[in-house]
Amino acid sequence: MNEFALIAQYFTRPPRDGGHLRLGVGDDCALLDIPAGETLAISTDMLVEGRHFFEGTDPEALGHKALAVNLSDLAAMGATPLGFSLALALPSADANWLGGFARGLFALADAHQLQLIGGDTTKGPLNICITIYGSLPPHAALRRDAARVGDDIWVSGTLGDARLGLEALQGKRLLDRTLLRPASARLHRPEPRIGLGLALRGIAHAAIDVSDGLMGDLAHILARSRVGAVIDADALPCGEALSAQDINLRREFALNGGDDYELCFTAAPAQAAAVQAAAQGSGVRVTRIGHVVDAHGLQVVDADGRPLAIAAHSFDHFN
Amino acid sequence: MNEFALIAQYFTRPPRDGGHLRLGVGDDCALLDIPAGETLAISTDMLVEGRHFFEGTDPEALGHKALAVNLSDLAAMGATPLGFSLALALPSADANWLGGFARGLFALADAHQLQLIGGDTTKGPLNICITIYGSLPPHAALRRDAARVGDDIWVSGTLGDARLGLEALQGKRLLDRTLLRPASARLHRPEPRIGLGLALRGIAHAAIDVSDGLMGDLAHILARSRVGAVIDADALPCGEALSAQDINLRREFALNGGDDYELCFTAAPAQAAAVQAAAQGSGVRVTRIGHVVDAHGLQVVDADGRPLAIAAHSFDHFN
Repeated sequence: MNEFALIAQYFTRPPRDGGHLRLGVGDDCALLDIPAGETLAISTDMLVEGRHFFEGTDPEALGHKALAVNLSDLAAMGATPLGFSLALALPSADANWLGGFARGLFALADAHQLQLIGGDTTKGPLNICITIYGSLPPHAALRRDAARVGDDIWVSGTLGDARLGLEALQGKRLLDRTLLRPASARLHRPEPRIGLGLALRGIAHAAIDVSDGLMGDLAHILARSRVGAVIDADALPCGEALSAQDINLRREFALNGGDDYELCFTAAPAQAAAVQAAAQGSGVRVTRIGHVVDAHGLQVVDADGRPLAIAAHSFDHFN
Repeated sequence: MNEFALIAQYFTRPPRDGGHLRLGVGDDCALLDIPAGETLAISTDMLVEGRHFFEGTDPEALGHKALAVNLSDLAAMGATPLGFSLALALPSADANWLGGFARGLFALADAHQLQLIGGDTTKGPLNICITIYGSLPPHAALRRDAARVGDDIWVSGTLGDARLGLEALQGKRLLDRTLLRPASARLHRPEPRIGLGLALRGIAHAAIDVSDGLMGDLAHILARSRVGAVIDADALPCGEALSAQDINLRREFALNGGDDYELCFTAAPAQAAAVQAAAQGSGVRVTRIGHVVDAHGLQVVDADGRPLAIAAHSFDHFN
């Protein structure tokens, strides 16, 4: 199969009626219409085999996850998804792999009325680079630099199960079969919180998606907003599998797990009911985990307010 | 050096005044304003070491070329460049390599008032994925499906020197030092024809950039426009180094060289003077090489109009 046939078979689909795509796959550029009065939101993620996923990972799960991590960035900005580009380096044109990958990718794309607008395919060590496009009214953006002293800090869904699933699959940790299933589902099939991000427009101040671990990601909000925070480690919503572990592991993986793809956001205390209503409307729970203070850095305390000595362990690709 | 320090040192620059970038590197998404009434043009190219460039290629040339091939796609659409994203997989955080790459990249970006708006950095086999954003009035787009029977076919600049330079550097072909220099310059530092693409709005019908070889690329225009073409192999503008070679090599590399990054476009014969004026205004020569016919496929003839048996040899990553 040559490059053009491969693109035609797996990655060319009829244009969606009423979409924003003026011209799709097959020209020098794709042409995408941005709704009048809105600004374009863009995010890129590159996933490398052996680094972001195991060799031999189910291609359908990989297709889902590669798009999900990008959608999660749009969610954290409060943007409406419009389309995405896919650049793919493949060791070979393997029909089984491509079929599975395309199925996982397009199932999630369809769930968000999102079109593939173009891309590039080449031979090389497996590398998946997706760039995603959304839009929003300029002043509705949930920026990292918008947290204010006194804000509550919230997190959506649950934390830590993806990390627990990863360590179980790596053989670093034993996990009961009934817990391995939800934990691996969290690792392989994160659900981007697009609906919640949209519902938080005009309610939340700052937001970020939790990809590297809650502590490290919240630290980005604090640094850019020039504020500090206190969070309660025992208020963190642990995933189903993590809830069955001891307290030290619960705290560590909820704070520093990574791969959660939940939203961490801040909002004025007066907005607490509006935050709960936004969460309910988008079918995801939210938990208040702390508050923003006029200080530097992040302090973690236990349920009794006693400081805990837990450091952020954000993933660093080059150390 | 960790991932965040690397991004800060090499890829974070002060925002450009008066640009379209509302929010740049460092949030979940970048925010880019599209001029009112215009549509967004997007293109992605992924460059893999050992596939698109030699191991050990000068990183400054690579920074230039990685952006140039994307700019060339905007040129072929007639779009104004607005910004680009960079996703980079690196085997290690090598300061010499990164410094050179960033120099080459930003020199070309600055020449086109183009801002880096965001991206991703990870460890992995060297892979450079740039996505570029431009804009244009929707009906000004130079689409591949817009060629009309009777149109002249034009090409900008010269062809074939990049391929000649490649084969010389691969040791497949001996080339005099005085010819190797311009040939490698064409291979390593293509100049995207942005000015010409803009000047051809409202004048040209269809356009494509010549990246895989003139014959293969022109065939995309013909297929999408459902027309045929006759081109004169001996009218093709050969590069300085290729001009010194024998007639068979001149024809072959001008027709099927690849890596030229010139524009091939069609325009009504009545627009010939306007095409020449557009070329003059943007400082690049253009040559009329044939015309569009009501037939299927591409016929290549010699200066006397006799058919030549030359097939397209477009590069195919998976064969």
